[in-house]
Amino acid sequence: MTPGPKATDAQPLRSDAERNRGRIIAAARTVFERDGLGASMASVAREAGVGIATLFRHFGVKEDLIAAVFADRMDAYVAAVDDALGVPDPWAGFTGFVEAICAMQAADRGFADVLTTTFPAAEALEERRAAAYQGVVELVARAKDSGRLRQDFTTQDLVLLLVANAGVVGFAGDTVPGAWRRLVALLIQSFQAPARGPLPDAPADDALYEAMVRAGAASIASRERGSAG
Amino acid sequence: MTPGPKATDAQPLRSDAERNRGRIIAAARTVFERDGLGASMASVAREAGVGIATLFRHFGVKEDLIAAVFADRMDAYVAAVDDALGVPDPWAGFTGFVEAICAMQAADRGFADVLTTTFPAAEALEERRAAAYQGVVELVARAKDSGRLRQDFTTQDLVLLLVANAGVVGFAGDTVPGAWRRLVALLIQSFQAPARGPLPDAPADDALYEAMVRAGAASIASRERGSAG
Repeated sequence: MTPGPKATDAQPLRSDAERNRGRIIAAARTVFERDGLGASMASVAREAGVGIATLFRHFGVKEDLIAAVFADRMDAYVAAVDDALGVPDPWAGFTGFVEAICAMQAADRGFADVLTTTFPAAEALEERRAAAYQGVVELVARAKDSGRLRQDFTTQDLVLLLVANAGVVGFAGDTVPGAWRRLVALLIQSFQAPARGPLPDAPADDALYEAMVRAGAASIASRERGSAG
Repeated sequence: MTPGPKATDAQPLRSDAERNRGRIIAAARTVFERDGLGASMASVAREAGVGIATLFRHFGVKEDLIAAVFADRMDAYVAAVDDALGVPDPWAGFTGFVEAICAMQAADRGFADVLTTTFPAAEALEERRAAAYQGVVELVARAKDSGRLRQDFTTQDLVLLLVANAGVVGFAGDTVPGAWRRLVALLIQSFQAPARGPLPDAPADDALYEAMVRAGAASIASRERGSAG
């Protein structure tokens, strides 16, 4: 461990290792934003200008890197739930929350996937997700009680919306940047009470969770294939 | 070119080359269904049990293979438009069509992507798409004239629906097989007149087309990366 450069201002001393870690996280943020979570560890190392061995020394598994990169986004997600619960009008709180998280997806393709992907090994990230989920349950219950949200709405419908929106965001990219706003506006109108008709049953919670776990496993597996490219 | 085996029944003689071609198309259908259009040419060759050189001799570019594999699905798509135009009730014709093409997406992940992806080099496929599009324009116009479809609906909204549904189908896979039905039912309710509120502008036709071309180019590029895996 070599000593870091002398700090000439208020900045604390930082070791090479800490600098590398920060550089890797910044590079991964760029790569995940551009290519989604399927991006390879090799492409992150390239973007960071470090060797693949250095990358793996800092983040032994891709979950650790994902958790580090998206820690602040997950914080913003938790904050969006809290903000929405603070809005006096429950319907405005609910729809504002839906628009806010879909906007977060549009701003960051990697995060678009994180919202509908579970990484059981990334504990800090999953703790934030669980905390947000409790708030979302309350948000949905309040909006239903207000009579503005259809009674057959479930939190699983939010997962469907996020997956659908991730699809549109990934497809539209920078070419049709506002496309997602129209999809989300249509879906919000469909959520509004009174329901215009019955719906097929919502997917079961545990099956949806299994799909989220599978999506996570697939993101991580893509490292193997991509690292050869 | 070696002569094919003697036909022992009504089957016509087939050369080895023709047999290989058929085997490659069947294998590609399996692989695209399972992994989407991003699947590599190498994985198609493996599934078909032929060498990569044989595969490329039959299909010099991935577009040719995609066009051959999905020729019958595109025919079914064109037929679905024609069927819908034959339904006396314009709203029933429109919603039946939406459900039918979303069901086609759910049955085949590869086709789910083909519906929202353009391959300018695959002429036979694009001719079918253009023919279907004319019918879709008429279907939308009839449903609007009937007063059941909201007046601000555009054919671009169908592209958004197909992209959103492809996202759900890809995510849900065999784990939550019916999830797409609920999303599509919600969206159909949102399409119904009278509109519950204004919408952000629909994406411009040419920008959406560009996104479809980009999606096609991305599918083909994935061959390069995937072929190393």
